[in-house]
Amino acid sequence: MKLARYGAPGEERPVVIHGESTFALDALTSDLDGTFFESGGIDRVRAALATGDLSEIDMTGQRIGAPIALPGKIVCIGLNYSDHAAETGAAIPAEPVVFMKDPSTVIGPFDEVLVPRASVKTDWEVELGVVIGTEARYLASPDEALAHVAGYAVSHDVSEREFQLERGGQWDKGKSCETFNPLGPWLVTSDEIPDPQQLRMTLDVNGVRRQDGTTANMIFSVAHAIWYLSQFMVLRPGDLINTGTPAGVALGIEGNPYLRAGDVVELAIEGLGAARQKVGQA
Amino acid sequence: MKLARYGAPGEERPVVIHGESTFALDALTSDLDGTFFESGGIDRVRAALATGDLSEIDMTGQRIGAPIALPGKIVCIGLNYSDHAAETGAAIPAEPVVFMKDPSTVIGPFDEVLVPRASVKTDWEVELGVVIGTEARYLASPDEALAHVAGYAVSHDVSEREFQLERGGQWDKGKSCETFNPLGPWLVTSDEIPDPQQLRMTLDVNGVRRQDGTTANMIFSVAHAIWYLSQFMVLRPGDLINTGTPAGVALGIEGNPYLRAGDVVELAIEGLGAARQKVGQA
Repeated sequence: MKLARYGAPGEERPVVIHGESTFALDALTSDLDGTFFESGGIDRVRAALATGDLSEIDMTGQRIGAPIALPGKIVCIGLNYSDHAAETGAAIPAEPVVFMKDPSTVIGPFDEVLVPRASVKTDWEVELGVVIGTEARYLASPDEALAHVAGYAVSHDVSEREFQLERGGQWDKGKSCETFNPLGPWLVTSDEIPDPQQLRMTLDVNGVRRQDGTTANMIFSVAHAIWYLSQFMVLRPGDLINTGTPAGVALGIEGNPYLRAGDVVELAIEGLGAARQKVGQA
Repeated sequence: MKLARYGAPGEERPVVIHGESTFALDALTSDLDGTFFESGGIDRVRAALATGDLSEIDMTGQRIGAPIALPGKIVCIGLNYSDHAAETGAAIPAEPVVFMKDPSTVIGPFDEVLVPRASVKTDWEVELGVVIGTEARYLASPDEALAHVAGYAVSHDVSEREFQLERGGQWDKGKSCETFNPLGPWLVTSDEIPDPQQLRMTLDVNGVRRQDGTTANMIFSVAHAIWYLSQFMVLRPGDLINTGTPAGVALGIEGNPYLRAGDVVELAIEGLGAARQKVGQA
Protein backbone atom coordinates (compact mmCIF):
# COMPACT_ATOMS: atom_id res chain seq x y z
CA MET A 1 0.00 0.00 0.00
CA LYS A 2 1.30 3.47 -0.91
CA LEU A 3 0.36 6.35 1.35
CA ALA A 4 1.01 9.91 0.21
CA ARG A 5 0.10 13.53 0.93
CA TYR A 6 -0.98 15.97 -1.78
CA GLY A 7 -1.49 19.74 -1.69
CA ALA A 8 0.26 23.00 -0.86
CA PRO A 9 2.92 23.03 1.89
CA GLY A 10 1.19 22.90 5.26
CA GLU A 11 -2.15 21.97 3.65
CA GLU A 12 -1.41 18.44 2.44
CA ARG A 13 -4.26 15.92 2.35
CA PRO A 14 -3.63 12.22 3.01
CA VAL A 15 -4.34 9.74 0.22
CA VAL A 16 -3.77 6.10 -0.57
CA ILE A 17 -2.62 4.99 -4.01
CA HIS A 18 -4.08 1.62 -5.04
CA GLY A 19 -3.22 0.33 -8.50
CA GLU A 20 -3.89 3.21 -10.88
CA SER A 21 -6.32 4.94 -8.53
CA THR A 22 -5.91 7.49 -5.74
CA PHE A 23 -8.36 7.61 -2.84
CA ALA A 24 -8.86 10.39 -0.30
CA LEU A 25 -8.27 9.49 3.34
CA ASP A 26 -9.79 12.65 4.88
CA ALA A 27 -12.71 10.61 6.20
CA LEU A 28 -10.30 8.31 8.05
CA THR A 29 -7.63 10.69 9.35
CA SER A 30 -6.60 14.33 9.27
CA ASP A 31 -2.98 13.44 8.56
CA LEU A 32 -0.40 10.66 8.30
CA ASP A 33 1.10 11.36 11.71
CA GLY A 34 2.08 9.52 14.85
CA THR A 35 -1.52 9.31 16.06
CA PHE A 36 -2.57 7.72 12.75
CA PHE A 37 0.15 5.08 12.86
CA GLU A 38 -0.15 4.14 16.52
CA SER A 39 -3.94 3.86 16.38
CA GLY A 40 -3.86 1.23 13.64
CA GLY A 41 -4.46 3.71 10.83
CA ILE A 42 -2.82 1.54 8.20
CA ASP A 43 -5.15 -1.35 9.03
CA ARG A 44 -8.15 1.00 8.80
CA VAL A 45 -7.07 2.16 5.36
CA ARG A 46 -6.64 -1.43 4.23
CA ALA A 47 -10.10 -2.35 5.50
CA ALA A 48 -11.69 0.68 3.85
CA LEU A 49 -10.01 -0.16 0.55
CA ALA A 50 -11.35 -3.71 0.76
CA THR A 51 -14.93 -2.60 1.41
CA GLY A 52 -14.80 0.16 -1.23
CA ASP A 53 -15.55 2.87 1.34
CA LEU A 54 -13.04 5.42 0.02
CA SER A 55 -13.69 8.16 -2.53
CA GLU A 56 -11.47 8.23 -5.57
CA ILE A 57 -9.94 11.62 -6.29
CA ASP A 58 -7.91 13.14 -9.11
CA MET A 59 -4.64 14.62 -7.88
CA THR A 60 -3.31 15.50 -11.34
CA GLY A 61 -1.18 18.62 -11.20
CA GLN A 62 -1.18 18.80 -7.40
CA ARG A 63 2.05 19.12 -5.46
CA ILE A 64 3.19 15.92 -3.77
CA GLY A 65 4.18 16.59 -0.18
CA ALA A 66 6.29 14.43 2.10
CA PRO A 67 4.31 11.24 2.78
CA ILE A 68 4.23 11.80 6.55
CA ALA A 69 3.44 14.79 8.75
CA LEU A 70 6.26 16.61 10.54
CA PRO A 71 8.12 13.83 12.39
CA GLY A 72 8.80 14.04 16.12
CA LYS A 73 12.45 13.46 15.37
CA ILE A 74 14.77 12.43 12.55
CA VAL A 75 17.49 10.04 13.66
CA CYS A 76 20.25 9.14 11.23
CA ILE A 77 22.76 6.34 11.03
CA GLY A 78 26.10 7.65 9.76
CA LEU A 79 28.74 5.78 7.75
CA ASN A 80 26.45 2.77 7.40
CA TYR A 81 27.84 1.52 4.08
CA SER A 82 31.48 0.43 4.03
CA ASP A 83 32.16 1.96 0.60
CA HIS A 84 30.82 5.34 1.81
CA ALA A 85 32.87 5.18 5.01
CA ALA A 86 35.94 4.50 2.91
CA GLU A 87 35.33 7.41 0.51
CA THR A 88 34.99 9.86 3.42
CA GLY A 89 38.22 8.59 4.96
CA ALA A 90 36.41 7.29 8.06
CA ALA A 91 36.97 3.94 9.75
CA ILE A 92 34.22 1.30 9.61
CA PRO A 93 32.23 2.02 12.78
CA ALA A 94 32.22 -0.65 15.48
CA GLU A 95 28.64 0.27 16.39
CA PRO A 96 26.14 2.60 14.70
CA VAL A 97 27.05 6.29 14.49
CA VAL A 98 23.95 8.29 15.43
CA PHE A 99 23.10 11.92 14.70
CA MET A 100 19.95 13.98 14.26
CA LYS A 101 18.37 16.37 11.80
CA ASP A 102 15.91 19.15 12.52
CA PRO A 103 12.46 17.57 11.80
CA SER A 104 11.41 20.76 9.99
CA THR A 105 13.91 20.00 7.21
CA VAL A 106 11.39 17.56 5.70
CA ILE A 107 9.98 18.75 2.36
CA GLY A 108 8.20 17.11 -0.56
CA PRO A 109 10.05 14.82 -2.98
CA PHE A 110 9.82 17.35 -5.86
CA ASP A 111 10.36 20.53 -3.82
CA GLU A 112 13.39 22.75 -4.27
CA VAL A 113 16.51 22.07 -2.20
CA LEU A 114 18.23 25.30 -1.12
CA VAL A 115 22.01 25.70 -0.94
CA PRO A 116 22.54 27.57 2.35
CA ARG A 117 23.85 31.13 2.05
CA ALA A 118 27.39 30.51 3.26
CA SER A 119 27.64 27.03 1.75
CA VAL A 120 30.26 25.84 -0.69
CA LYS A 121 29.96 22.11 0.07
CA THR A 122 26.29 21.09 -0.21
CA ASP A 123 26.21 17.35 -0.90
CA TRP A 124 23.67 14.65 -1.71
CA GLU A 125 22.91 11.32 0.03
CA VAL A 126 20.20 8.89 -1.10
CA GLU A 127 18.95 6.89 1.88
CA LEU A 128 16.34 4.34 2.81
CA GLY A 129 13.97 6.23 5.11
CA VAL A 130 12.18 4.17 7.78
CA VAL A 131 9.02 5.47 9.46
CA ILE A 132 8.19 4.11 12.89
CA GLY A 133 4.67 2.74 13.38
CA THR A 134 4.60 1.71 17.03
CA GLU A 135 6.64 2.80 20.04
CA ALA A 136 9.98 0.97 20.40
CA ARG A 137 11.76 1.09 23.77
CA TYR A 138 14.52 -1.27 24.90
CA LEU A 139 13.77 -3.93 22.30
CA ALA A 140 15.14 -7.31 23.36
CA SER A 141 16.63 -8.16 19.97
CA PRO A 142 16.76 -7.04 16.32
CA ASP A 143 14.21 -9.77 15.60
CA GLU A 144 11.54 -7.60 17.21
CA ALA A 145 12.45 -4.47 15.28
CA LEU A 146 10.74 -4.65 11.89
CA ALA A 147 7.34 -5.13 13.53
CA HIS A 148 7.67 -1.50 14.68
CA VAL A 149 8.03 -0.14 11.12
CA ALA A 150 5.05 1.57 9.48
CA GLY A 151 6.74 1.79 6.11
CA TYR A 152 9.63 2.96 3.96
CA ALA A 153 10.32 5.97 1.78
CA VAL A 154 13.05 7.48 -0.39
CA SER A 155 14.88 9.96 1.83
CA HIS A 156 17.44 12.55 0.75
CA ASP A 157 19.81 13.36 3.63
CA VAL A 158 21.22 16.57 2.14
CA SER A 159 24.45 17.47 3.93
CA GLU A 160 26.73 20.51 4.04
CA ARG A 161 30.21 19.07 4.47
CA GLU A 162 32.00 22.20 5.66
CA PHE A 163 29.31 22.83 8.28
CA GLN A 164 29.35 19.13 9.21
CA LEU A 165 33.08 18.49 9.38
CA GLU A 166 35.05 21.73 9.50
CA ARG A 167 33.09 24.05 11.79
CA GLY A 168 33.73 22.44 15.15
CA GLY A 169 32.24 19.62 17.08
CA GLN A 170 29.23 17.69 15.92
CA TRP A 171 27.70 16.78 12.55
CA ASP A 172 24.17 18.10 13.23
CA LYS A 173 25.25 21.62 12.13
CA GLY A 174 25.65 20.44 8.54
CA LYS A 175 22.51 18.30 8.46
CA SER A 176 19.72 20.63 9.56
CA CYS A 177 19.66 23.44 7.00
CA GLU A 178 16.26 24.41 5.59
CA THR A 179 14.94 21.96 2.91
CA PHE A 180 17.65 19.36 3.74
CA ASN A 181 15.34 16.32 3.93
CA PRO A 182 13.20 15.71 0.82
CA LEU A 183 11.03 12.63 1.48
CA GLY A 184 8.84 10.49 -0.73
CA PRO A 185 6.99 10.27 -3.10
CA TRP A 186 5.25 7.59 -1.02
CA LEU A 187 5.32 5.79 2.25
CA VAL A 188 5.25 2.15 1.14
CA THR A 189 3.84 0.09 3.98
CA SER A 190 6.13 -2.52 5.45
CA ASP A 191 4.01 -5.49 4.25
CA GLU A 192 5.10 -4.60 0.69
CA ILE A 193 8.79 -4.63 1.63
CA PRO A 194 9.34 -8.04 3.22
CA ASP A 195 13.15 -7.59 3.09
CA PRO A 196 14.44 -4.02 3.40
CA GLN A 197 17.99 -5.31 2.84
CA GLN A 198 17.46 -6.10 -0.84
CA LEU A 199 16.67 -2.70 -2.35
CA ARG A 200 18.71 -1.10 -5.09
CA MET A 201 19.12 2.67 -4.73
CA THR A 202 20.41 5.24 -7.20
CA LEU A 203 21.07 8.97 -7.34
CA ASP A 204 21.82 11.05 -10.44
CA VAL A 205 22.94 14.68 -10.59
CA ASN A 206 22.24 16.47 -13.89
CA GLY A 207 21.75 13.10 -15.52
CA VAL A 208 25.07 11.64 -14.33
CA ARG A 209 24.78 8.52 -12.15
CA ARG A 210 26.57 9.32 -8.89
CA GLN A 211 25.28 6.70 -6.44
CA ASP A 212 24.32 3.15 -7.33
CA GLY A 213 24.08 0.93 -4.30
CA THR A 214 21.95 -1.60 -2.52
CA THR A 215 20.71 -1.82 1.03
CA ALA A 216 22.30 -5.29 1.03
CA ASN A 217 25.58 -3.46 1.72
CA MET A 218 24.49 -1.77 4.94
CA ILE A 219 26.91 -2.40 7.80
CA PHE A 220 24.05 -2.34 10.33
CA SER A 221 20.71 -3.58 8.99
CA VAL A 222 17.44 -1.70 9.47
CA ALA A 223 16.46 -4.20 12.17
CA HIS A 224 19.81 -3.81 13.95
CA ALA A 225 19.60 -0.01 13.80
CA ILE A 226 16.08 0.10 15.27
CA TRP A 227 16.98 -2.35 18.03
CA TYR A 228 20.19 -0.41 18.78
CA LEU A 229 18.50 3.03 18.81
CA SER A 230 15.81 1.70 21.15
CA GLN A 231 18.48 1.18 23.82
CA PHE A 232 19.32 4.90 23.78
CA MET A 233 16.03 6.64 23.03
CA VAL A 234 12.34 5.94 22.59
CA LEU A 235 11.35 5.60 18.94
CA ARG A 236 7.82 6.93 18.56
CA PRO A 237 5.16 6.55 15.86
CA GLY A 238 5.85 8.96 13.01
CA ASP A 239 9.59 9.27 13.73
CA LEU A 240 11.87 9.02 10.70
CA ILE A 241 15.13 7.07 10.60
CA ASN A 242 17.59 7.73 7.78
CA THR A 243 19.66 4.58 7.48
CA GLY A 244 22.81 5.81 5.74
CA THR A 245 24.04 6.29 2.20
CA PRO A 246 26.21 4.21 -0.15
CA ALA A 247 29.35 5.53 -1.87
CA GLY A 248 29.26 8.24 -4.50
CA VAL A 249 28.72 11.50 -2.64
CA ALA A 250 30.48 14.67 -3.83
CA LEU A 251 32.80 14.55 -0.80
CA GLY A 252 34.22 11.29 -2.14
CA ILE A 253 34.41 12.14 -5.85
CA GLU A 254 37.52 13.57 -7.53
CA GLY A 255 37.01 17.31 -7.89
CA ASN A 256 34.17 17.35 -5.30
CA PRO A 257 31.29 18.43 -7.55
CA TYR A 258 29.12 19.88 -4.79
CA LEU A 259 25.59 21.05 -5.55
CA ARG A 260 24.97 24.48 -7.07
CA ALA A 261 21.78 26.37 -7.88
CA GLY A 262 20.37 24.99 -11.11
CA ASP A 263 21.48 21.41 -10.52
CA VAL A 264 18.90 18.63 -10.66
CA VAL A 265 19.07 15.61 -8.34
CA GLU A 266 17.10 12.44 -9.11
CA LEU A 267 16.80 9.64 -6.54
CA ALA A 268 15.13 6.27 -6.64
CA ILE A 269 14.87 3.18 -4.47
CA GLU A 270 13.50 -0.12 -5.73
CA GLY A 271 9.81 -0.41 -4.83
CA LEU A 272 9.69 3.02 -3.22
CA GLY A 273 9.47 5.25 -6.28
CA ALA A 274 11.52 8.15 -7.56
CA ALA A 275 12.05 11.76 -6.49
CA ARG A 276 13.54 14.75 -8.27
CA GLN A 277 14.71 18.02 -6.78
CA LYS A 278 15.94 21.19 -8.42
CA VAL A 279 18.59 23.01 -6.46
CA GLY A 280 18.13 26.68 -5.61
CA GLN A 281 20.00 29.25 -3.55
CA ALA A 282 18.84 30.34 -0.09
CA MET B 1 5.06 37.07 33.17
CA LYS B 2 5.29 33.39 34.10
CA LEU B 3 3.62 30.87 31.82
CA ALA B 4 3.20 27.27 32.95
CA ARG B 5 1.32 24.07 32.21
CA TYR B 6 -0.48 22.02 34.88
CA GLY B 7 -2.01 18.57 34.75
CA ALA B 8 -1.26 14.94 33.95
CA PRO B 9 1.33 14.14 31.26
CA GLY B 10 -0.20 14.76 27.85
CA GLU B 11 -3.17 16.60 29.39
CA GLU B 12 -1.50 19.77 30.64
CA ARG B 13 -3.51 23.00 30.66
CA PRO B 14 -1.84 26.36 30.04
CA VAL B 15 -1.86 28.95 32.82
CA VAL B 16 -0.29 32.30 33.65
CA ILE B 17 1.03 33.04 37.11
CA HIS B 18 0.58 36.67 38.12
CA GLY B 19 1.68 37.68 41.60
CA GLU B 20 0.15 35.13 43.98
CA SER B 21 -2.59 34.13 41.53
CA THR B 22 -2.85 31.57 38.76
CA PHE B 23 -5.19 32.14 35.82
CA ALA B 24 -6.40 29.60 33.25
CA LEU B 25 -5.50 30.30 29.63
CA ASP B 26 -7.82 27.70 28.05
CA ALA B 27 -10.02 30.49 26.68
CA LEU B 28 -7.01 32.00 24.86
CA THR B 29 -5.11 28.95 23.62
CA SER B 30 -5.17 25.17 23.72
CA ASP B 31 -1.46 25.00 24.49
CA LEU B 32 1.82 26.94 24.81
CA ASP B 33 3.12 25.83 21.44
CA GLY B 34 4.64 27.33 18.32
CA THR B 35 1.27 28.54 17.04
CA PHE B 36 0.65 30.36 20.34
CA PHE B 37 4.01 32.13 20.31
CA GLU B 38 4.08 33.12 16.65
CA SER B 39 0.52 34.45 16.70
CA GLY B 40 1.28 36.97 19.46
CA GLY B 41 -0.06 34.77 22.23
CA ILE B 42 2.10 36.37 24.91
CA ASP B 43 0.68 39.81 24.05
CA ARG B 44 -2.86 38.43 24.20
CA VAL B 45 -2.21 36.99 27.67
CA ARG B 46 -0.81 40.31 28.83
CA ALA B 47 -3.85 42.17 27.47
CA ALA B 48 -6.26 39.71 29.07
CA LEU B 49 -4.50 40.04 32.43
CA ALA B 50 -4.76 43.85 32.20
CA THR B 51 -8.49 43.77 31.47
CA GLY B 52 -9.21 41.11 34.09
CA ASP B 53 -10.64 38.72 31.50
CA LEU B 54 -8.99 35.57 32.87
CA SER B 55 -10.44 33.12 35.38
CA GLU B 56 -8.39 32.44 38.48
CA ILE B 57 -7.90 28.76 39.20
CA ASP B 58 -6.45 26.72 42.05
CA MET B 59 -3.69 24.37 40.89
CA THR B 60 -2.77 23.14 44.37
CA GLY B 61 -1.62 19.55 44.26
CA GLN B 62 -1.59 19.36 40.47
CA ARG B 63 1.47 18.15 38.60
CA ILE B 64 3.50 20.91 36.96
CA GLY B 65 4.34 19.98 33.38
CA ALA B 66 7.03 21.44 31.15
CA PRO B 67 6.04 25.06 30.45
CA ILE B 68 5.88 24.53 26.68
CA ALA B 69 4.32 21.88 24.44
CA LEU B 70 6.53 19.33 22.70
CA PRO B 71 9.16 21.47 20.91
CA GLY B 72 9.81 21.07 17.19
CA LYS B 73 13.45 20.59 18.03
CA ILE B 74 15.92 20.92 20.90
CA VAL B 75 19.24 22.44 19.84
CA CYS B 76 22.08 22.52 22.34
CA ILE B 77 25.29 24.50 22.60
CA GLY B 78 28.10 22.29 23.93
CA LEU B 79 31.10 23.34 26.00
CA ASN B 80 29.77 26.88 26.31
CA TYR B 81 31.38 27.67 29.67
CA SER B 82 35.17 27.72 29.80
CA ASP B 83 35.32 26.05 33.24
CA HIS B 84 33.10 23.19 31.99
CA ALA B 85 35.18 22.76 28.82
CA ALA B 86 38.28 22.55 31.01
CA GLU B 87 36.81 19.93 33.39
CA THR B 88 35.85 17.68 30.46
CA GLY B 89 39.33 17.98 28.99
CA ALA B 90 38.04 19.72 25.85
CA ALA B 91 39.55 22.77 24.18
CA ILE B 92 37.67 26.08 24.28
CA PRO B 93 35.61 25.95 21.07
CA ALA B 94 36.43 28.51 18.37
CA GLU B 95 32.75 28.62 17.39
CA PRO B 96 29.65 27.11 19.01
CA VAL B 97 29.49 23.32 19.23
CA VAL B 98 25.96 22.28 18.23
CA PHE B 99 24.10 19.06 18.93
CA MET B 100 20.48 17.96 19.29
CA LYS B 101 18.24 16.11 21.70
CA ASP B 102 15.09 14.16 20.91
CA PRO B 103 12.24 16.64 21.58
CA SER B 104 10.28 13.89 23.35
CA THR B 105 12.84 13.92 26.18
CA VAL B 106 11.08 16.98 27.64
CA ILE B 107 9.32 16.25 30.94
CA GLY B 108 8.03 18.34 33.84
CA PRO B 109 10.40 20.00 36.32
CA PHE B 110 9.40 17.67 39.17
CA ASP B 111 9.06 14.47 37.14
CA GLU B 112 11.32 11.47 37.64
CA VAL B 113 14.56 11.23 35.63
CA LEU B 114 15.31 7.64 34.58
CA VAL B 115 18.81 6.18 34.48
CA PRO B 116 18.86 4.22 31.18
CA ARG B 117 19.10 0.43 31.51
CA ALA B 118 22.70 0.03 30.37
CA SER B 119 23.87 3.29 31.91
CA VAL B 120 26.68 3.70 34.41
CA LYS B 121 27.47 7.37 33.67
CA THR B 122 24.24 9.39 33.86
CA ASP B 123 25.23 12.98 34.56
CA TRP B 124 23.52 16.31 35.32
CA GLU B 125 23.78 19.71 33.58
CA VAL B 126 21.86 22.81 34.67
CA GLU B 127 21.30 25.07 31.67
CA LEU B 128 19.54 28.26 30.70
CA GLY B 129 16.77 27.12 28.33
CA VAL B 130 15.70 29.60 25.65
CA VAL B 131 12.35 29.23 23.89
CA ILE B 132 12.00 30.77 20.43
CA GLY B 133 9.02 33.08 19.88
CA THR B 134 9.32 34.08 16.23
CA GLU B 135 11.03 32.44 13.27
CA ALA B 136 14.76 33.24 12.98
CA ARG B 137 16.48 32.61 9.63
CA TYR B 138 19.83 34.08 8.58
CA LEU B 139 19.81 36.86 11.18
CA ALA B 140 22.12 39.70 10.14
CA SER B 141 23.71 40.11 13.58
CA PRO B 142 23.45 39.01 17.22
CA ASP B 143 21.76 42.36 17.91
CA GLU B 144 18.62 41.03 16.24
CA ALA B 145 18.56 37.76 18.16
CA LEU B 146 16.91 38.44 21.52
CA ALA B 147 13.81 39.86 19.82
CA HIS B 148 13.13 36.28 18.66
CA VAL B 149 13.03 34.90 22.22
CA ALA B 150 9.64 34.11 23.79
CA GLY B 151 11.14 33.40 27.20
CA TYR B 152 13.52 31.48 29.40
CA ALA B 153 13.29 28.39 31.59
CA VAL B 154 15.42 26.18 33.82
CA SER B 155 16.52 23.29 31.62
CA HIS B 156 18.21 20.07 32.75
CA ASP B 157 20.31 18.63 29.91
CA VAL B 158 20.70 15.15 31.42
CA SER B 159 23.58 13.36 29.69
CA GLU B 160 24.91 9.81 29.62
CA ARG B 161 28.67 10.18 29.28
CA GLU B 162 29.52 6.68 28.12
CA PHE B 163 26.81 6.84 25.44
CA GLN B 164 27.93 10.37 24.51
CA LEU B 165 31.68 9.92 24.43
CA GLU B 166 32.66 6.24 24.34
CA ARG B 167 30.15 4.58 22.00
CA GLY B 168 31.30 5.92 18.66
CA GLY B 169 30.73 9.08 16.72
CA GLN B 170 28.36 11.75 17.82
CA TRP B 171 27.10 13.08 21.15
CA ASP B 172 23.34 12.82 20.40
CA LYS B 173 23.35 9.16 21.50
CA GLY B 174 23.99 10.17 25.10
CA LYS B 175 21.59 13.10 25.13
CA SER B 176 18.27 11.66 23.96
CA CYS B 177 17.37 8.99 26.51
CA GLU B 178 13.81 9.04 27.83
CA THR B 179 13.19 11.76 30.50
CA PHE B 180 16.52 13.49 29.75
CA ASN B 181 15.19 17.06 29.52
CA PRO B 182 13.25 18.25 32.57
CA LEU B 183 12.07 21.82 31.87
CA GLY B 184 10.54 24.54 34.04
CA PRO B 185 8.76 25.24 36.38
CA TRP B 186 7.92 28.31 34.27
CA LEU B 187 8.56 30.00 31.01
CA VAL B 188 9.51 33.50 32.14
CA THR B 189 8.79 35.88 29.27
CA SER B 190 11.76 37.75 27.86
CA ASP B 191 10.55 41.18 29.03
CA GLU B 192 11.25 40.04 32.61
CA ILE B 193 14.83 38.99 31.75
CA PRO B 194 16.38 42.10 30.19
CA ASP B 195 19.88 40.61 30.38
CA PRO B 196 20.12 36.81 30.08
CA GLN B 197 23.88 37.04 30.72
CA GLN B 198 23.51 37.96 34.40
CA LEU B 199 21.76 34.93 35.88
CA ARG B 200 23.18 32.82 38.67
CA MET B 201 22.52 29.11 38.29
CA THR B 202 22.98 26.27 40.78
CA LEU B 203 22.54 22.51 40.92
CA ASP B 204 22.60 20.30 44.01
CA VAL B 205 22.65 16.51 44.18
CA ASN B 206 21.40 14.99 47.45
CA GLY B 207 21.86 18.38 49.09
CA VAL B 208 25.47 18.82 47.97
CA ARG B 209 26.12 21.88 45.80
CA ARG B 210 27.68 20.61 42.58
CA GLN B 211 27.24 23.48 40.11
CA ASP B 212 27.32 27.16 41.00
CA GLY B 213 27.77 29.34 37.97
CA THR B 214 26.51 32.37 36.16
CA THR B 215 25.44 32.94 32.58
CA ALA B 216 27.95 35.81 32.61
CA ASN B 217 30.58 33.13 31.99
CA MET B 218 29.12 31.79 28.75
CA ILE B 219 31.68 31.69 25.94
CA PHE B 220 28.97 32.44 23.35
CA SER B 221 26.10 34.59 24.63
CA VAL B 222 22.44 33.71 24.07
CA ALA B 223 22.26 36.38 21.36
CA HIS B 224 25.40 35.07 19.66
CA ALA B 225 24.12 31.48 19.78
CA ILE B 226 20.75 32.36 18.23
CA TRP B 227 22.36 34.45 15.49
CA TYR B 228 24.89 31.68 14.83
CA LEU B 229 22.31 28.86 14.74
CA SER B 230 20.14 30.88 12.34
CA GLN B 231 22.90 30.62 9.73
CA PHE B 232 22.65 26.81 9.79
CA MET B 233 18.98 26.08 10.44
CA VAL B 234 15.65 27.80 10.82
CA LEU B 235 14.72 28.42 14.45
CA ARG B 236 10.95 28.14 14.75
CA PRO B 237 8.44 29.28 17.40
CA GLY B 238 8.37 26.80 20.26
CA ASP B 239 11.88 25.42 19.61
CA LEU B 240 14.08 25.03 22.69
CA ILE B 241 17.75 25.96 22.87
CA ASN B 242 19.86 24.64 25.74
CA THR B 243 22.74 27.07 26.09
CA GLY B 244 25.37 25.01 27.88
CA THR B 245 26.34 24.21 31.45
CA PRO B 246 28.96 25.59 33.86
CA ALA B 247 31.56 23.44 35.65
CA GLY B 248 30.65 20.87 38.26
CA VAL B 249 29.25 17.90 36.38
CA ALA B 250 30.01 14.36 37.58
CA LEU B 251 32.32 13.80 34.62
CA GLY B 252 34.59 16.54 35.97
CA ILE B 253 34.46 15.67 39.69
CA GLU B 254 36.99 13.41 41.43
CA GLY B 255 35.42 9.96 41.73
CA ASN B 256 32.74 10.74 39.10
CA PRO B 257 29.63 10.52 41.32
CA TYR B 258 27.20 9.73 38.50
CA LEU B 259 23.46 9.63 39.19
CA ARG B 260 21.88 6.51 40.67
CA ALA B 261 18.26 5.62 41.40
CA GLY B 262 17.21 7.36 44.63
CA ASP B 263 19.33 10.46 44.07
CA VAL B 264 17.65 13.87 44.15
CA VAL B 265 18.72 16.72 41.86
CA GLU B 266 17.72 20.31 42.59
CA LEU B 267 18.28 23.06 40.03
CA ALA B 268 17.63 26.79 40.11
CA ILE B 269 18.31 29.80 37.94
CA GLU B 270 17.91 33.37 39.19
CA GLY B 271 14.48 34.71 38.21
CA LEU B 272 13.41 31.43 36.58
CA GLY B 273 12.50 29.37 39.64
CA ALA B 274 13.62 26.01 40.95
CA ALA B 275 13.12 22.40 39.88
CA ARG B 276 13.66 19.10 41.67
CA GLN B 277 13.87 15.63 40.19
CA LYS B 278 14.13 12.24 41.85
CA VAL B 279 16.19 9.74 39.94
CA GLY B 280 14.72 6.36 39.06
CA GLN B 281 15.82 3.35 37.05
CA ALA B 282 14.48 2.62 33.55
